[in-house]
Amino acid sequence: MATADLPKYYRVRTELDTILDTLDIGDTVPPERTLSERFGVSRETVRQALHDLLVEGRIERRGRGTVVSSPKLLQPLSLRSYTEGAKEQGRVPGRVLVTFEEIVASETLCTELDLEAGGTVLHLERVLLADGEKLGLESTYLPTHRFAGFLESFDPETSLYAAIRATGVTFGVAEERIETVLAAPREAGLLETTTAMPMILLNRRSLDVHGDPIERVRSLYRGDRMAFRAILRE
Amino acid sequence: MATADLPKYYRVRTELDTILDTLDIGDTVPPERTLSERFGVSRETVRQALHDLLVEGRIERRGRGTVVSSPKLLQPLSLRSYTEGAKEQGRVPGRVLVTFEEIVASETLCTELDLEAGGTVLHLERVLLADGEKLGLESTYLPTHRFAGFLESFDPETSLYAAIRATGVTFGVAEERIETVLAAPREAGLLETTTAMPMILLNRRSLDVHGDPIERVRSLYRGDRMAFRAILRE
Repeated sequence: MATADLPKYYRVRTELDTILDTLDIGDTVPPERTLSERFGVSRETVRQALHDLLVEGRIERRGRGTVVSSPKLLQPLSLRSYTEGAKEQGRVPGRVLVTFEEIVASETLCTELDLEAGGTVLHLERVLLADGEKLGLESTYLPTHRFAGFLESFDPETSLYAAIRATGVTFGVAEERIETVLAAPREAGLLETTTAMPMILLNRRSLDVHGDPIERVRSLYRGDRMAFRAILRE
Repeated sequence: MATADLPKYYRVRTELDTILDTLDIGDTVPPERTLSERFGVSRETVRQALHDLLVEGRIERRGRGTVVSSPKLLQPLSLRSYTEGAKEQGRVPGRVLVTFEEIVASETLCTELDLEAGGTVLHLERVLLADGEKLGLESTYLPTHRFAGFLESFDPETSLYAAIRATGVTFGVAEERIETVLAAPREAGLLETTTAMPMILLNRRSLDVHGDPIERVRSLYRGDRMAFRAILRE
């Protein structure tokens, strides 16, 4: 595709990329009108280019303006906790409790967690933060019969994996599915993003060393703020 | 968030989900006008609900209509080839050659592949198919000094990993970065999708058992048609 064939918004996006490279994190991006004049294109075209850069996390809205983003938080796909991954990158991890309750497990959950019909689970839902920024929404289901004391004893602002391990449970293997989805309105609200922003959805089921289910987790991460890293071996 | 507080499009989306559950793969989704009458909402609202379902791969455009999609192709994050993953799920894998040439490596590539400045690489770019459907665009850079014969001998419709292994190279470890991005216009064209559709981007660097770089790969997959699976161990 020759440059002349490229859609206008994409040429603007490419030129903006070059401009952003010269700016520092947190620097203000010139406003739409300025860019529209500089590139001789409509504001709609500029808006489309900026939308691309927003979705990919190069820039972000801050108050009324738009600024250069910090790099995406790169989390390992592993059985280590969110906390460790964030700290490793020099970010301050945080968690905000949304839900913590005992509920009757759905049919699907009963199958996934080897529960009999009507069995109950603890449902823990937390917003994950890095440096105060809301990056993910983690929804964990634990079989009540294994972790009944957690409703009283677990501090939702701390690492769940550390608490699970402290009960003597050893993680064996987990299977994780990774895909992209759009946030539901409630999720977008909790993460202070929009339903138009692509998200990364991780669905995990973890077993202990005896093959017994520990947890079922649905984690939704802002696609503009998070990336993941996997180490693959032969 | 009470049901009454949900945006209209999202209520329509939820009801459509229930309807889709009763249909088979390939069945036609009722047209916008019918749905707009049935739910008593504007066509714009129906369109937004359908957009959500398109992005998440529940439905897809076929000709002038919209049909129920087959499930996403679930590929393992591993050093096995695309071919093996597709076959395992009963899909017929295919590849269409886009580019195969020797080029001077960029500065970044030289660093990543341990090449001296001005070193050359083979650039192989292929569209990946499953059952004839274009699902991904794979762009691989190989150090020429290791795989010089490939320009003549490698058949681009076959597995590159099989060819690499056939030269006696043994994969050691690869690091892969996973994130969501938007397709560039050229990429969207090659994959017959749009620049608005969220994609999954995988960036991989593979080393052999001696720690020497084998390849640098940039794979872009349709977010509506692909998901990935990782096995995590303690």
